[in-house]
Amino acid sequence: MFHQVTIIGLGLIGSSLARAAKSYGLSSRVVAYDVDPSVRARVAELGIADAVANELENAVTDADLTIICVPVGATSDVARQMKDHLKPGAIVSDVGSVKGMVCDALSQILRPDVHIVPAHPVAGTEYSGPDSGFATLFQDRWCIITPPDGTSPDAIEKVRAFWCGCGANVESMSAHHHDLVLAITSHVPHLIAYNIVGTAADLEEVTQSEVIKFSAGGFRDFTRIAASDPTMWRDIFLNNKDAVLEMLGRFNEDLAALQRMIRWGDGQGLYDLFTRTRAIRRSIIAQGQETSAPDFGRVRKED
Amino acid sequence: MFHQVTIIGLGLIGSSLARAAKSYGLSSRVVAYDVDPSVRARVAELGIADAVANELENAVTDADLTIICVPVGATSDVARQMKDHLKPGAIVSDVGSVKGMVCDALSQILRPDVHIVPAHPVAGTEYSGPDSGFATLFQDRWCIITPPDGTSPDAIEKVRAFWCGCGANVESMSAHHHDLVLAITSHVPHLIAYNIVGTAADLEEVTQSEVIKFSAGGFRDFTRIAASDPTMWRDIFLNNKDAVLEMLGRFNEDLAALQRMIRWGDGQGLYDLFTRTRAIRRSIIAQGQETSAPDFGRVRKED
Repeated sequence: MFHQVTIIGLGLIGSSLARAAKSYGLSSRVVAYDVDPSVRARVAELGIADAVANELENAVTDADLTIICVPVGATSDVARQMKDHLKPGAIVSDVGSVKGMVCDALSQILRPDVHIVPAHPVAGTEYSGPDSGFATLFQDRWCIITPPDGTSPDAIEKVRAFWCGCGANVESMSAHHHDLVLAITSHVPHLIAYNIVGTAADLEEVTQSEVIKFSAGGFRDFTRIAASDPTMWRDIFLNNKDAVLEMLGRFNEDLAALQRMIRWGDGQGLYDLFTRTRAIRRSIIAQGQETSAPDFGRVRKED
Repeated sequence: MFHQVTIIGLGLIGSSLARAAKSYGLSSRVVAYDVDPSVRARVAELGIADAVANELENAVTDADLTIICVPVGATSDVARQMKDHLKPGAIVSDVGSVKGMVCDALSQILRPDVHIVPAHPVAGTEYSGPDSGFATLFQDRWCIITPPDGTSPDAIEKVRAFWCGCGANVESMSAHHHDLVLAITSHVPHLIAYNIVGTAADLEEVTQSEVIKFSAGGFRDFTRIAASDPTMWRDIFLNNKDAVLEMLGRFNEDLAALQRMIRWGDGQGLYDLFTRTRAIRRSIIAQGQETSAPDFGRVRKED
């Protein structure tokens, strides 16, 4: 499919992509670069790329497709550094969870003879680093591409084919719409998960050891989300500010209404909402975006 | 351990308890009663109890231990109905997620020659009904007991031994403190999960089909919690109002601070919170209240 794919940043997503590209034969050669020398050493040890470059410039020189897999706040720096070393006609993509700011930055920084096809695979776990990746991470997940107007259809098709090769379904939309969709399906959920874990840690009446002991009643599910990479998530909130604040405003309005129902004992109102939310879960399971195993398929003794 | 244990209400928890009592030999006889005739028929079919009673009164007559496993709003009615049929010295317990209101109601309604030892196993899944239960649900989970002052130590010891027999760890605390601990570790997490799923369902700019498609970015984890039984959760919020509103107030204050950090671009503040929350997750895993498998141990193809 490609002669050379270069991956910049070998965290959970980057290292999973390197593994997928090799496992599914999506590129004759996979080159990896990470700014952290210890990550480069580990990637070489793991053998998940054909070559590990010590400089970003060398890594991209012969790449047909370069995929930037760094926290979105670092994307511009990476783009500036690779700019003069990309070959004409090369495709540059990324995997950032924010697309508006990233698309603008890439379009402004990169040369006009390079194709820009930003992408965002909606997949992940709470773990970080090159050891946490696996080839099947993108299987049956969605990957959203947000090519700017006027992007070469051929370049778009190549990026789409690459993600399909990783097992993902690909959907195209504007960067602006992507940022709204992800604000409600990912960014605000992470924000409130981080928030409640912080609130629980600060209580005086309830000890932290009690919070930990009795976490199986719901809290522990939030802690998984709140264990995600802090740098990555800081950058997401700083770079998708408008959409996050908009969705958070709606969340707050709805929560105020719910709070009022509890205060005034409106059992019917609570019941109606709690019934309505079940249907959405059923659709998510029906569409293969979730396992229906109880308790997330957590493994139980003796079952 | 007991001659007869009677279980009132055969949902997820009640049917798991019946299975555990039989599997682990905790009672010579397990009698089941459910107000819903179709549940009674299903329990008889499943064979998870020695007998299924058609009247609550008959079910409790010979019981050494009766465990009420109904939504907390129905506890008082059940207690009133069984009151005159319990034998002297019988123990009555429950599994409700709220303890203050339940303890008060049971103490007021039941006779003084009956021992009251309220309990709450902190365990569950998003499924309901007699088919969803399993014997190992309580394994390595915590069960909190909240016996009123002056309860017979012998009765307390018997209930503790029963739960230990189910594989649970038992901790004793006041009903008031229980309700505060659970408000932050379970009730508020459920409330905000229900809330965000409701918010997402009401958007105009983002379609429901998009919310479902791209739910793997965090949202789907909230939908599991928001798929829990509506009646049970309505009753929890109505019966633990004060503690829930208190904890929700703190959650809201913290969220306002976080919202402000995003608006003003305070990356350091965000990073600090996001780092602090990781430690709590590590402790939960270290204490065996969660699996460390990535993505909750969701099963992946080809792994």
